[in-house]
Amino acid sequence: MSKKVLDYLQNNHERLLNKLTEFLAIPSVSTSSVHKQDVVDAATFVADYLKEIGFDQVEIKKTKGHPLVYGEWLGAKSNVPTALFYGHYDVQPAEPLELWDSEPFKAEVRDGRLFARGSSDDKGQVFMQLAVFEAYMKTEGKLPVNIKVCIEGEEEIGSENLYEILADKKEQFSADFAVISDSGMVDNGQPTILYGLKGFTGLEITLHGPNADLHSGMYGGAVRNPLMAMAHLLSTMKDVDEVVQVAGFYDNVIPLDDAERQLIKDVPSEDFIQSTGVPETVSEKGYTAKEHTMARPTLEINGLFGGYQGEGTKTIIPSSATAKLTCRLVPGQNPDEIQELLIKHLENHIPSGVKLSVKREPLSAKAYKVDPNHPLIEKAAKSYEKAFGKEVVYVRMGGSIPVVEWIDAIYKIPVVLLGFGTPDDKLHSPNESFPLENFDKGMKTLVYYWQEVASCK
Amino acid sequence: MSKKVLDYLQNNHERLLNKLTEFLAIPSVSTSSVHKQDVVDAATFVADYLKEIGFDQVEIKKTKGHPLVYGEWLGAKSNVPTALFYGHYDVQPAEPLELWDSEPFKAEVRDGRLFARGSSDDKGQVFMQLAVFEAYMKTEGKLPVNIKVCIEGEEEIGSENLYEILADKKEQFSADFAVISDSGMVDNGQPTILYGLKGFTGLEITLHGPNADLHSGMYGGAVRNPLMAMAHLLSTMKDVDEVVQVAGFYDNVIPLDDAERQLIKDVPSEDFIQSTGVPETVSEKGYTAKEHTMARPTLEINGLFGGYQGEGTKTIIPSSATAKLTCRLVPGQNPDEIQELLIKHLENHIPSGVKLSVKREPLSAKAYKVDPNHPLIEKAAKSYEKAFGKEVVYVRMGGSIPVVEWIDAIYKIPVVLLGFGTPDDKLHSPNESFPLENFDKGMKTLVYYWQEVASCK
Repeated sequence: MSKKVLDYLQNNHERLLNKLTEFLAIPSVSTSSVHKQDVVDAATFVADYLKEIGFDQVEIKKTKGHPLVYGEWLGAKSNVPTALFYGHYDVQPAEPLELWDSEPFKAEVRDGRLFARGSSDDKGQVFMQLAVFEAYMKTEGKLPVNIKVCIEGEEEIGSENLYEILADKKEQFSADFAVISDSGMVDNGQPTILYGLKGFTGLEITLHGPNADLHSGMYGGAVRNPLMAMAHLLSTMKDVDEVVQVAGFYDNVIPLDDAERQLIKDVPSEDFIQSTGVPETVSEKGYTAKEHTMARPTLEINGLFGGYQGEGTKTIIPSSATAKLTCRLVPGQNPDEIQELLIKHLENHIPSGVKLSVKREPLSAKAYKVDPNHPLIEKAAKSYEKAFGKEVVYVRMGGSIPVVEWIDAIYKIPVVLLGFGTPDDKLHSPNESFPLENFDKGMKTLVYYWQEVASCK
Repeated sequence: MSKKVLDYLQNNHERLLNKLTEFLAIPSVSTSSVHKQDVVDAATFVADYLKEIGFDQVEIKKTKGHPLVYGEWLGAKSNVPTALFYGHYDVQPAEPLELWDSEPFKAEVRDGRLFARGSSDDKGQVFMQLAVFEAYMKTEGKLPVNIKVCIEGEEEIGSENLYEILADKKEQFSADFAVISDSGMVDNGQPTILYGLKGFTGLEITLHGPNADLHSGMYGGAVRNPLMAMAHLLSTMKDVDEVVQVAGFYDNVIPLDDAERQLIKDVPSEDFIQSTGVPETVSEKGYTAKEHTMARPTLEINGLFGGYQGEGTKTIIPSSATAKLTCRLVPGQNPDEIQELLIKHLENHIPSGVKLSVKREPLSAKAYKVDPNHPLIEKAAKSYEKAFGKEVVYVRMGGSIPVVEWIDAIYKIPVVLLGFGTPDDKLHSPNESFPLENFDKGMKTLVYYWQEVASCK
């Protein structure tokens, strides 16, 4: 049965790539209000495609923010399972534009890769699933399982309205398991079962000093410089050994056992120096870079600013300094508790002469871990291996997909992460791309997977 | 003789204020290339005014940057001295514009103050000198002393071309002493002899990490975050007691003796908390805020930036972090040596995993101190006291006027600082202003002073 489906995908390769290029051309940047209509256009693209494939009940659900696209095909036999497929059609901002080698919203093929914002995260991977559904419907006239599709437009801004929808529409969205294609493989050509994700929390903090910027000659020596105060405050949060110094931060972290350290050791390593250009890797004392990225919590400054940023010199003491902080969390850590610990630490370590204000990051998520021996996961491994011709590795990753935790919490169903990104994709950065080979092998994997899981009820 | 001159100033008060308003309306922001023509227009305003007063040899001297206005009046008897009057017609940027209560380049009188960028620093004070010259010429037909005028357009960007001109045109600019009106008084109505200024040096430093911004989930734990590295690095430069930790920084500082500490104690104190809005003052351990601002060296971060600064969250590890640093120096410290010490400190303390690049601030200046008992200073004190009706105080200040050190170094002549600003002027900040009372009393002081020093040859 899958031969016909695979042939269809091969025969329609160019047309599908052109259609994806249209999808990528819509600058659906969810964080910027300038792109509000573009986000709606991308939702419309997805809804139209679902209707074209033959999905029912297709609707563009309004939210307080950007819309969510729903559609379902429930024509399979009653003894086959229902899967909830989740993805997102919104993308990160493309800035800084000058660092792109081609237009971010005009997909271009170079060196076997498709370059465009969203090519990997997540429009490209959403499109692969839809194309596989199309191939099944056009060749077999049906899908192997019942499918509910939920493609949101707010993932890159913290899925602000998704939790409420998932909680409110439990009947409409209910399924036997969920599938998400918004993740990656540890190396090009290395099929990867992702069985754990990190949780997430964050803060924006501002230190307020003088009411206005001051002349550094007239006031230097009388007032605390908010930027220097910020440097002192931030440097108390993590030492140069990359150990977070916030009291209680590691208290509930489930320690890595030897078996898991071995599992991580067995994963082929990304050459971080080569892929990022850093002079050397740096990770938490006592842990390898691989262990730290995959399975230890992190604290990062995502942005920091205050004072004069223009050309030349402006001899001021700035009135304030602001830092954006986020943490990636591991199983055992409660994001709300960690947020409170961070605030407590800041309050306890703030230098004199400045006042602290804190904005809590509204998004938070617990870390997620699934049993790698679950039948749905085993079938994923089998499908990957068949498509890529190589044994899978089992990994945990540093990224956070809050929806995974929410589906787990609300629906109590397994979440299967079928991702095809690679370490070279430059997610969230200029020159995002996706290897064309993974479109083909990824779609093959999905064709096999839907067939495999038809028996999982 | 001065009665007629003072009457002239009083009778022409409104016309002169309108003329100053025209001068302040020219946005001669030297740091921004957008304002290149405005800077030229301000130079033209000064040159036209000098010609109108009756100055000779008036010229707008081209430089590699913004022009300098020269003019001279050498019609006094040969037994009276020649003074070089220096000022600047360029101003600081007005940004952030939204914090101004009235247009920065549309002078407005409120509460007895003239609000506009440059009203105090330094267009307003330059204009006072020119108005006094006008008053003398229109009433007496001559000035009490020979005057050479040098008004530059690059003070706010480090007087980049002034040193070369002063060194090249020694004959043209030569004088018996120099007068500068670009400083302030310690309190409203408190005439102040400024007998010392701080020196200056600076650096812009960047820490380079990954080649591009990275996804904080995928790379957090493998690479050093340049912003956190910057926080650590900056926090090593100055401790929370405001003591600079750069090795050698204080080595050549001439210590404050008890006499000078007493002198500083006697100066009426600015209420820093009231004037700046900080929750408390903070100064170097072992020194009062007054001692630190006036007579101890400082190190300040004037700007700091890296990563995402927009709305919401962008979960990246930024590729770089940049900080702008400047120091105010005291007698004994060599700015070039201090710059090297700073760089050495940074190189010795840079965390692993990032690379440092350094841009040296081109401007540097030694601190300046003049004998408060010099006859030219004594006559300044006498003139201030006559105009303001109050005994002068003698102070050193934290600001830097590199030209003072250059005139000292090149011409070996005393520099007299006749300034009329107040602590409430908000120099370099939104809502810069200058008290109208000081226009009147300041011009009186100048009228007296030029008459007093006519005998100083």
